[in-house]
Amino acid sequence: MTAVHTAPGWDTQRLAAWSGPHLSSVEAALSAWVGVDAPVKLGDAMRYAVLDGGKRLRPLLVLAASEAVGGVAAAALRAACATELIHAYSLVHDDLPCMDNDVLRRGKPTVHVQFGEADALLAGDALQALAFELLTPDDGSVEPTVQATLCRLLARAAGSQGMAGGQAIDLASVGLALTEAQLREMHRLKTGALLQGSVDMGAACSQQVAPQALAALSAYGAALGLAFQVVDDILDVTADSQTLGKTAGKDAAADKPTYVSLLGLDGAREQATQLLGEALAALERSGLPDTNALRALAHMVVDRDR
Amino acid sequence: MTAVHTAPGWDTQRLAAWSGPHLSSVEAALSAWVGVDAPVKLGDAMRYAVLDGGKRLRPLLVLAASEAVGGVAAAALRAACATELIHAYSLVHDDLPCMDNDVLRRGKPTVHVQFGEADALLAGDALQALAFELLTPDDGSVEPTVQATLCRLLARAAGSQGMAGGQAIDLASVGLALTEAQLREMHRLKTGALLQGSVDMGAACSQQVAPQALAALSAYGAALGLAFQVVDDILDVTADSQTLGKTAGKDAAADKPTYVSLLGLDGAREQATQLLGEALAALERSGLPDTNALRALAHMVVDRDR
Repeated sequence: MTAVHTAPGWDTQRLAAWSGPHLSSVEAALSAWVGVDAPVKLGDAMRYAVLDGGKRLRPLLVLAASEAVGGVAAAALRAACATELIHAYSLVHDDLPCMDNDVLRRGKPTVHVQFGEADALLAGDALQALAFELLTPDDGSVEPTVQATLCRLLARAAGSQGMAGGQAIDLASVGLALTEAQLREMHRLKTGALLQGSVDMGAACSQQVAPQALAALSAYGAALGLAFQVVDDILDVTADSQTLGKTAGKDAAADKPTYVSLLGLDGAREQATQLLGEALAALERSGLPDTNALRALAHMVVDRDR
Repeated sequence: MTAVHTAPGWDTQRLAAWSGPHLSSVEAALSAWVGVDAPVKLGDAMRYAVLDGGKRLRPLLVLAASEAVGGVAAAALRAACATELIHAYSLVHDDLPCMDNDVLRRGKPTVHVQFGEADALLAGDALQALAFELLTPDDGSVEPTVQATLCRLLARAAGSQGMAGGQAIDLASVGLALTEAQLREMHRLKTGALLQGSVDMGAACSQQVAPQALAALSAYGAALGLAFQVVDDILDVTADSQTLGKTAGKDAAADKPTYVSLLGLDGAREQATQLLGEALAALERSGLPDTNALRALAHMVVDRDR
């Protein structure tokens, strides 16, 4: 998509300047924490699934939300990595033959193609466990109350009333004619829950956030989460596999209901723009002094081309 | 196996009298908590995987350990259910065609036979997330510090340096000649980590346990965890599928190294007896006033016939 929204705050360069050091920290932390001391092949599969790939959108949302509320950096870095592990595990399992049976991800063979189905399954399982392990260090760096809240938010975002639930609805919806409300509900869970959860987790890295700000940030996360999926649906139609780093056109091929199949390409683009507006309005409502990074990330989500 | 150990504490009847109400509480809690409000088919698969089946050994270990240290009952019940969810999810994933490809579990068709592979995969994933959700209620019933500790213990027990890691080693060991030390390490992770973790989690339901008692309980859990697997290996050879409620003889059929293949049947039985002794000795060391339930559970693990 071409950028149709003027960002009154940061431009792309300013976002890149903010993201750069954060992305480096996240990569370094993931590299230090993922698959280390695991049995060899399992550890390799876990690292293959997580390192050197991905936009790291969820970690950036965690870190931006945490900064917006003055959260504890050590907690935010762990939460950032934890959300990425949940995302990565979901991709590994999603790509398995019994699910989407996909062979290409982030421009590389998928985990089960590289390591076999059994180790891919176990690597996904172990990544989910590791996410909760990262959130609960016993080195005094993160308050136990914050640890508990982060685990609660992540578990809810990942589980049957979050991401896994959305994937189950997705599975059951192939070939069905969904209403827009049903499609929205599916995506609210499948993709939205973890993106919103990432924002909520970032906000939970401070224990002194006004309830109104927490609610506004969560609303921002919800709108952004849905916008992300709408744009995903658009890119599945408009982009090629090489740009996406994954198989393009597979939703249509699988006869899956999407925003594009329901609203058409223009309708889906309008929807994305409207959701961006909702996300930005929520940030205004939050009353937080500096939400520039969150604003810029919302623009990035809607304007991205992969 | 026939009972060769005199239990100086509780007999089988006394254990049953203790277990009964606890098992009822666990079943009621699982029924109230698992798969409720999940998308229909996913929720059904989750409940099918968890309810009406299993010995509930892990929950009983949590509850017995918690009682031994005077733990908070609300925390212990949640921890008990959480360990069972991790166990149940591991069975669902283990049974998948890409792993053990098993069709019978607890006398019923396995989850993927009943619901399809994709929903079985998702149900397992959602059960793991639910375990951590159960540990982190926001109703004030469990101290945040306890929540964080329980999540930490469970994540470690389930992950790449626990259960999932052990399964990966198991996968990689098919057809190999393992030493006893390697076999022990595999089982310490694959089965032992979650059993030991269950004891540790029970102990963590109180915040006032002497370090020496914590260490002793953990050693009890480690010995019991290994004993459990040794007995499993024995039963795989000596019991029939109907008694086991799962396919007997499958380890030998799959050319998997076991305690029986390594030590012979008598050697494996000796090993089980020795581990029982270690577990009971650890309880003596703990200095805790009432470890009758834990003692009886150790006897039960070694003397069971399924």
